[in-house]
Amino acid sequence: MGMKSYKDIREIGKPVDIAIISTPREHIPRIVEDSAHVGIKGVIVIPQGFADADEEGKVLQGRLTRIACDKGIRILGPNTLGVINAFSGFTSSFILLRKEKVPVGVICQSGIFFVGSSLFTGMMGKGIDLGNSCDIDFADAIEYFGEDKQIEVIFAHIEGMRAGRRFFEVAKRVAHRKPIIALKTAQSQQGATVAQSHSGSLVGDHEVFEASFKQAGVISAHDPEEVLDYTKAFLNLPPMKGNMVGVITFSGAAGIILIDAFQKYGLVLAELSPRTIRSIKTLSPRWMSIQNPLDIWPALMKHGLANVYSIALSEVLEDPGVDEVICTAVAPGLPEQAYLDVTKVIKEKANSFPKKPIVVWLYGGKIHPVVEKLEEGRKVASYPTLPRAARVLSTLHGRYQFLKQTLSYPPRFPIKGGKRNIQKKVTGIWNNKVDEKTAYALLEGYGIPVVKSRYCQEFSEVMKAAKEIGYPVVLKVSSPQISHKTEVGGIALDLKGPTDLKEAYDSLLVSMKKKVSQAQLDGFIVQEMVLRGKEVILGGRRDRQFGPILIFGAGGIYTEVWKDISYGIAPLSSQDDRRMIQETRYSQILGGIRGEKGCDINLLMDCLLRLSRLMLDMEEIQEIDINPFVIFSEGGLTVDARVIVIKT
Amino acid sequence: MGMKSYKDIREIGKPVDIAIISTPREHIPRIVEDSAHVGIKGVIVIPQGFADADEEGKVLQGRLTRIACDKGIRILGPNTLGVINAFSGFTSSFILLRKEKVPVGVICQSGIFFVGSSLFTGMMGKGIDLGNSCDIDFADAIEYFGEDKQIEVIFAHIEGMRAGRRFFEVAKRVAHRKPIIALKTAQSQQGATVAQSHSGSLVGDHEVFEASFKQAGVISAHDPEEVLDYTKAFLNLPPMKGNMVGVITFSGAAGIILIDAFQKYGLVLAELSPRTIRSIKTLSPRWMSIQNPLDIWPALMKHGLANVYSIALSEVLEDPGVDEVICTAVAPGLPEQAYLDVTKVIKEKANSFPKKPIVVWLYGGKIHPVVEKLEEGRKVASYPTLPRAARVLSTLHGRYQFLKQTLSYPPRFPIKGGKRNIQKKVTGIWNNKVDEKTAYALLEGYGIPVVKSRYCQEFSEVMKAAKEIGYPVVLKVSSPQISHKTEVGGIALDLKGPTDLKEAYDSLLVSMKKKVSQAQLDGFIVQEMVLRGKEVILGGRRDRQFGPILIFGAGGIYTEVWKDISYGIAPLSSQDDRRMIQETRYSQILGGIRGEKGCDINLLMDCLLRLSRLMLDMEEIQEIDINPFVIFSEGGLTVDARVIVIKT
Repeated sequence: MGMKSYKDIREIGKPVDIAIISTPREHIPRIVEDSAHVGIKGVIVIPQGFADADEEGKVLQGRLTRIACDKGIRILGPNTLGVINAFSGFTSSFILLRKEKVPVGVICQSGIFFVGSSLFTGMMGKGIDLGNSCDIDFADAIEYFGEDKQIEVIFAHIEGMRAGRRFFEVAKRVAHRKPIIALKTAQSQQGATVAQSHSGSLVGDHEVFEASFKQAGVISAHDPEEVLDYTKAFLNLPPMKGNMVGVITFSGAAGIILIDAFQKYGLVLAELSPRTIRSIKTLSPRWMSIQNPLDIWPALMKHGLANVYSIALSEVLEDPGVDEVICTAVAPGLPEQAYLDVTKVIKEKANSFPKKPIVVWLYGGKIHPVVEKLEEGRKVASYPTLPRAARVLSTLHGRYQFLKQTLSYPPRFPIKGGKRNIQKKVTGIWNNKVDEKTAYALLEGYGIPVVKSRYCQEFSEVMKAAKEIGYPVVLKVSSPQISHKTEVGGIALDLKGPTDLKEAYDSLLVSMKKKVSQAQLDGFIVQEMVLRGKEVILGGRRDRQFGPILIFGAGGIYTEVWKDISYGIAPLSSQDDRRMIQETRYSQILGGIRGEKGCDINLLMDCLLRLSRLMLDMEEIQEIDINPFVIFSEGGLTVDARVIVIKT
Repeated sequence: MGMKSYKDIREIGKPVDIAIISTPREHIPRIVEDSAHVGIKGVIVIPQGFADADEEGKVLQGRLTRIACDKGIRILGPNTLGVINAFSGFTSSFILLRKEKVPVGVICQSGIFFVGSSLFTGMMGKGIDLGNSCDIDFADAIEYFGEDKQIEVIFAHIEGMRAGRRFFEVAKRVAHRKPIIALKTAQSQQGATVAQSHSGSLVGDHEVFEASFKQAGVISAHDPEEVLDYTKAFLNLPPMKGNMVGVITFSGAAGIILIDAFQKYGLVLAELSPRTIRSIKTLSPRWMSIQNPLDIWPALMKHGLANVYSIALSEVLEDPGVDEVICTAVAPGLPEQAYLDVTKVIKEKANSFPKKPIVVWLYGGKIHPVVEKLEEGRKVASYPTLPRAARVLSTLHGRYQFLKQTLSYPPRFPIKGGKRNIQKKVTGIWNNKVDEKTAYALLEGYGIPVVKSRYCQEFSEVMKAAKEIGYPVVLKVSSPQISHKTEVGGIALDLKGPTDLKEAYDSLLVSMKKKVSQAQLDGFIVQEMVLRGKEVILGGRRDRQFGPILIFGAGGIYTEVWKDISYGIAPLSSQDDRRMIQETRYSQILGGIRGEKGCDINLLMDCLLRLSRLMLDMEEIQEIDINPFVIFSEGGLTVDARVIVIKT
C-alpha cells in the first residue's frame, strides 16, 4: 500500500508512540517484549484467542500481564478494537468509525459498544475497548476520563473485572466530578459462564457490583437504551434540585401512565399554585377541573395548540412548586400535521428557564427529525416513552442528591481486649472455623453486643452459670466439628429451671454420643434465652473482586426465599449504613408496623460500622455471619455467630 | 358545505344507520332519545364533560345510560372519537386518520391510542374508543372483535371498568380464538384518582385485574411499546412450541445480555446438536469453543458475513433441539456498510423454516428502512433491544401453553349440614361480622378443616372441653364486639394442664371486666393448640368489578410487607388454583427448603377450590379471611377465621 514496512520493530530506529499489534497470537508476547525494548510506552493487542479462548490462550495472556509488570509497558487488550479519540482524530480500530466530538468517554469490554457508540448512537467522543484487560483495566480508564477536560460523561460496559476494589475507589473519586454510567451485564449464572469465554472476565456477584455502584455514586443502567437515556440527560439538562414534576399533556391517558411511572421511580406530581391553575382555567371549559397533569386538550380545542402550549409551559415553569417539567408532544409524521409541532415553543421556554429541566415525550410516526430539531443546542431531552422520561428524571435527581451529600465516617473506637490480642486468638485456632467462645470475644472486642454466655466443662459449672445468667437459659454443646447444632440435637432451648437444665444436659450427652461420637466435645455453653425481638443477619465477607464487604438482611432460614439482603463495601460511611438497612423490605418491619414498637435501628447501624472496621482490621477473616442478631426496641444481641478465617 | 342539514333528527324521514352527536352536552340526552324514537340503533356521543367532569356531567351521563337501557339504543361514549374501520373506510373521528387494513382491533379509553394507532404505529385496522363507556363497554367490544373475521389480534387500553366480571368472562372465551393484549393503566393510587376525571372510570385493584388477565388468557403489557412488540409477534410469527432458543450473534457481549434476559423471562438457551457445532467449528479458529449463543464473529472475519450467517442460521434452524432463533443483525446506516446487511439471508431462511419463529435484534443508526424490508411479508419480527426480543418470545410461548391447556373444574361436592341450613345461620347473625362458631361451621360445611373447638359457658364446661380436646389448649373469649383478641388480653395460648387453664380463665375474666366491660361476653372457646406447621392466608372477597375472588398468601402479620399475595377469580379451575400458590414466593418455603419436609400443597389447592365454591354459593358473604390457616406436611387447620356478610 505504498507505506514503508519493517520486519522487526527494532529496525525502525526512531521513537514510536504506540504499537498496534495484529498478528497470530503466538507471536504477540515476543513483539510486546521487543516494543518495550525499543522504549514504546503502550501497545494495543487486537487479536482474540487469549483468556477468552482455550488453555493455551490463557497462558499467553498470563505472559502478557507479566511483561506489562516487568517491563513497565502498558498493554490494552488483547481482544480489542483499541481506542478512538474524535478530538484528535486517532483510532486503532480496523473497522471504519465515525468521529463525533461529543464529550462522552466510553469504556467497554466488547466491540459492539465501541462500534455501536460510534456508528449508530453517535455517543462517543473517546473510547477505550478494554477487551480481556490483561493490564489496563476499568480503574485506569475511568481515572483517565476523569482527568480529561474534553469528557463530561463516562459510560462503562462491564462484564466483569478482577480489581473490583480499585475500580470502586477510583469511581468513587471520579463520580464527584463527572457522571459515570455503568451497564453491568452477565448478571445471571449462565451469563457469567459465557462471559468467561467472551472477555475472560471474573464476573463476580451482581449484587455486590450493584452495591459498589450505589456506594461510589455510579449510575447503574440495565440495558443499552437506558445508557443513552441517561447520557443525553446529563449532556442536555441542568441539575434537578427537587422531585416535584409538572406535567403538560394533551392526553389524559398519557398523564395517567406517567403518574404510574412517578410512583415507580419516586417522583412527585407537583401541586400547582393557584396562579397557574387560574391562568389555565380561563382557557378551559367551565366543567373542567384543572390539576397536574395539566390536560390542555379541551383548551387547545378552543384556542389552538401553539398558543395554549406556550402559556401552559410558561406558567408551569414559573410555578415555584415545580422543579422540572415533562411535556408530551406530537412528532408530526405528515405535512398536514405540521400545526401539531410545538418544538419551537419548547425550545424558547428552555432558553427562558435554563434552571428547570424540560423533558419531552415525543409521540409520532417519524420521530427522528423532530428529536434532532428539539435537541439541537442541548437544552432539552426527549424520550420515546413516558416511563423512560420519568426514569431519567429520577436518575437526574439521584445524581443531584449524591453530589449534595457529604459522607461522614464514624470515629475510630477503642477495641476491648486490644486488637493484637484478639487477632492472635482468632488466628491461633486449629481449623478454619473459629470456635464460639473466640468468635464471641472477637465481636465483643469490637463492641457488638453478644448474648450472655458461659463456657463450662461439667454439670456443676453449668448449674452455676445458669444461676448467674438467670433462667430461662439455652444449653449448647461446644464442639469445633459441629456446625449445625439443631440437626444433631446439640442444643436445648428455653430451659426454665434446674430440673429442665439437668434433663437437657443428660439428653445432650446421650445424643452427642449417639450421633457424633467422632466429634471432639469441648464442653458446654450456657446462654441467656432471648425470647423477644426480631431476627436479622449482620455479616461480613471477603469478596474476590471487592475485598471486605458487609451484609445486612432479614434473619432466619427464609432469607434466601425473600432475597431481602443488602450489601455494602467496607469502609462504610454512616450514609451507606443507613442505605443498607433501608434497602431491605424487612426494614419496614423493623421500623414497626401494625402498632408494634420499632426496633433499635441505630444499634444496627452502629453494629454494621463496627463490623466494617473489623473486616478491614482483620485480613485473616474470610467470613462473619451473625445470624440471628436479635434486635429489640432498645438494644440487641448476637445469638449465633460463625467466623471463618483464611488458613494459609 | 353544500350538504343538506336538518334542524331535528325527526325531520329526516329516511332510515339512518348511525347518529354521531357533537353538540354541547346539555342537549345530548334529548337528541339520543329522538334518535331512538326514529329507529336509529346506535349513536356515538363525541363530547367531553360527563362522568369525566363535574356533578352535572355525571347526572347527564346517568341519563344516557338509562336511555340506552330503556329504549334499546346502543351508545358509544361520551368523550370519544368513536370508531374507525379501515376495511370499510368508515370513521366517526373528527381528527383526520390513516386507514391501514391491518388485522388488529383496538379498544381504548383515550384518544391518544386511537389517533396514535392510526397515524403513528399503523397498528389499527378497526378501532373502538369507549370513552366514558356509559353503555358499550369492554366486554361488548371484545365480543365484537372476537367474531370479526378481519381481526386477528385485539388490543385493549384499560383505565378501569364497572363490569369486570363480564369483561373477564367474554375475554376468557375470545382469548381461545385470538390473542388479546391488555394495557392496564392507572395502577397507582394517584393514577386511579386522575383516571376518575379522565374517563370517569372505576379503576379497581390492579392486582385483581392482573389475576383476571392471567386467568382469562389475556396478555398483560406494561407500556405501549410492549403492546406493539406483542402485536407484531402475533401477526408475524408462527406458534412457539418450546422455549429452547438458539442465538446467532456477531457479538459476544450481545449474547451475554440476551442470556441475562432469558433468565428473567423464563427462556432456555438451547443446547446445540453435535452436528450444528461441527459445521460452525469448521468455519471458526481452532481455539474457539462453539456453543450457544453462536458467536460467528471470528468465522465471519475469515469467510465473510453473508456466507457464515446463512450457514449458521440454516444449521441452527435445522437443529431439533432449537425451538426458535434470535438473530443479531446490523441495520447499516451508511452506504459503505451495505455488506453488513443480512436481511435477505434472514428472509430466505424464514421462508424455508416457517414453523420456527425467527426474531431479529437490529442494531444500527437508521433502523426504520431495514425493519420495513425485513418484516415485509410478515415472516419475521425485529426488535430494537435484546431484552425486548426475549420478552416477546416468552409471551409467544405463554400463548402457546395457554391454548394447549384444557381447564379442569373440580366436581361438585356435598355440603355438610346442608347449604340452606348454613346459609340461614350465616345470614341470621346480628351484625356484619359472623361469630366464630358460625364461621367455623360454615367452613366445616364446605370441607375446609378447622381446629378442634368447643364453645362453653362456664368453667366446668371449659375443663371438660380441654380434656376432650387434649392439652395443650388455647382459651379465648367469645364476643362479637371483640375483633382483635390479643390486644385486649382475650386469649391465652399453650395451656399445658388444668392448673394453667384455671389461671388463664381467671385472668381472662379480669381483663375482660377491666378492658372491655361494654363487650357482650358470649362465653369461652377452648381450642386445640396448634404448634407445628406454616401459616398461610386463604381468603375470599366480593370485588366491586369482578365479584367473588380468592386470595392466597403467606400468613401472619408480615404479609403486607412481603406483598406475597396472589389472586384468583371464582370459579377457580385446578390450574388457577395451582397458579395462585406457585405465584407466591412463599410457595418455595411450603415446598420445603433446607431439608425441611414440604407442606400439603394439595390440601391448600383443595381448600381454595372449596372457598371458590363457597363464595359463589353465598352471595351474602362480603369477605372471608382464614388467617392463619396452618398447613402441615400432611393436613392443615383453620386456626382463625373472620367472615363478614353484607347486611341490607
